[in-house]
Amino acid sequence: MKIPVYQDVLDAYERIAPHIIRTPVLTSPYLNELTGAQLFFKCENFQTPGAFKVRGGSNAVFGLSDEQAKSGVATHSSGNHASCLSYAANRRGIPCNVVMPRTAPQAKKDMVRRYGGVITECEPSTSSREATFARVQAATGGDFVHPYNDPRVIAGQGTCALEFVEQMHNDYGGGLDFAMAPIGGGGMVSGICLTLAMLAPETRIIAAEPEQADDAMRSFKAGYIIAEDAPKTIADGLLVPLKDLTWHFVSNHVTDILTASEQEIIEAMKLTWKHLRVVMEASSSVPLATILKNQEKFAGKRVGIIITGGNVDLGQLPWLT
Amino acid sequence: MKIPVYQDVLDAYERIAPHIIRTPVLTSPYLNELTGAQLFFKCENFQTPGAFKVRGGSNAVFGLSDEQAKSGVATHSSGNHASCLSYAANRRGIPCNVVMPRTAPQAKKDMVRRYGGVITECEPSTSSREATFARVQAATGGDFVHPYNDPRVIAGQGTCALEFVEQMHNDYGGGLDFAMAPIGGGGMVSGICLTLAMLAPETRIIAAEPEQADDAMRSFKAGYIIAEDAPKTIADGLLVPLKDLTWHFVSNHVTDILTASEQEIIEAMKLTWKHLRVVMEASSSVPLATILKNQEKFAGKRVGIIITGGNVDLGQLPWLT
Repeated sequence: MKIPVYQDVLDAYERIAPHIIRTPVLTSPYLNELTGAQLFFKCENFQTPGAFKVRGGSNAVFGLSDEQAKSGVATHSSGNHASCLSYAANRRGIPCNVVMPRTAPQAKKDMVRRYGGVITECEPSTSSREATFARVQAATGGDFVHPYNDPRVIAGQGTCALEFVEQMHNDYGGGLDFAMAPIGGGGMVSGICLTLAMLAPETRIIAAEPEQADDAMRSFKAGYIIAEDAPKTIADGLLVPLKDLTWHFVSNHVTDILTASEQEIIEAMKLTWKHLRVVMEASSSVPLATILKNQEKFAGKRVGIIITGGNVDLGQLPWLT
Repeated sequence: MKIPVYQDVLDAYERIAPHIIRTPVLTSPYLNELTGAQLFFKCENFQTPGAFKVRGGSNAVFGLSDEQAKSGVATHSSGNHASCLSYAANRRGIPCNVVMPRTAPQAKKDMVRRYGGVITECEPSTSSREATFARVQAATGGDFVHPYNDPRVIAGQGTCALEFVEQMHNDYGGGLDFAMAPIGGGGMVSGICLTLAMLAPETRIIAAEPEQADDAMRSFKAGYIIAEDAPKTIADGLLVPLKDLTWHFVSNHVTDILTASEQEIIEAMKLTWKHLRVVMEASSSVPLATILKNQEKFAGKRVGIIITGGNVDLGQLPWLT
């Protein structure tokens, strides 16, 4: 297990800068009033393939030697890592094979195919996903870029917090009391930990998770990884369990993990669409949902929130079904 | 008729800077590929009250003397000017009375009330709107801030193009071949004309209009203002006719006015939500709709588009009804 260090984040940023967008930070006086906190939203949904995962995926793809790159890359993913890795592989001109649950949103499958990724479908469970992937990788020989339990991926995700800290100081007069992101496998949260431990150790890091997929919260409280095989939540990006690398960061650097119900997640999603006027996934609204139900914790605080992705089936919005 | 000049735009920018957001410019490789052009979207939907009209409204409100300000401001509007003027009046702590068509989207009425504006409803026609407004203004004595035919408003809207030109040069390596915005009464288009005539006279200015409310296009072709009393289109921000001041700019500086059907507007709206991942109004998608049907005109060109507003009833999306 190679644990990435801060220098890996700086190296990643130099490597991926031509392939990613320095996404803007948005605020909403209405949401500030509603929560009693000062919220700053880092809009990773504006990345070209629609999610922060383009950072980690690009770092892995563009870090390969020419020799390694020949066989391409392979992964399993509930959606955004698949499309982001395909995007990066496409930019480098190498093959990308991905295993996705058959239940992944059509918008995410479409995007993988748009970037030339080849999809093999599996059942929506960790066990099916891993078994299917083993077959695919044996057949293609691509370099395995795990969606989160990979030091290259975690260092790549850490570049988001790097930009966020700079933007807060340049444009919003200072640092953050809290940094928040949704947690599935913990790749983004680990990247935040890695970067803020160096740049802003005073910022407390809080992960947010659906009640119906609360394995990270239970792991955090138990002190060891608890994995759930097939959780069901509208937050389709947060179905996967922690692994050893992300557990290292979560167990050592995260202050708390808060949870929200499906209804609270949907409500926060609609609030953000309405008042921030961005299209984002249900997974991305879990942090706001937990802030709304823990207002005393965040009262008057400066809270940075990563909007992790924006790939949504516009024909199936959860508040309309 | 006082025609605003470029210095009025600079004065407006200094006056309103504390009250507006320097909105980001977003791009989408997918939409570029689809259209064959290079599109740059200036996201005025991210203004706090959700529309560019906060620029003109703030310029009018904060330009009033203390004596003038005592009676507040009054206006008529299909929605966004009403909420933006209310927002500005609220920040200055003065009253704001607005006449709105009863058919205006609930999201826009809610926003006016949130900012303390007092609504009087009228029928959705220019004649009813003007008659109702005359009664309201006589009763309240507020300073009339016309939604577009007012030099303070046009100079305020001109600040958007000012930022856009700066952002293009700083972040996107140069100027624009075309600048586009939807046209209703012509306030934003006039502001663009005013600013670009000084800063970028080589940029051609194109207005975009719904086929079902094509009075500006017909006026442009006829050479005099043709007003329609009660057009019907999903682009609810574009129902009003040109007036003398905006006609001055449109007739002298606009290169062309293109139109799109209701279905084309809805398709462009959904495309933008999906690929730019922003929540924007049907009115804002008319420029993209016209680009998609006039691709030869824009092939390979750098096209700046103002996303004018983002106040949408999320429960009633046009592609779902």
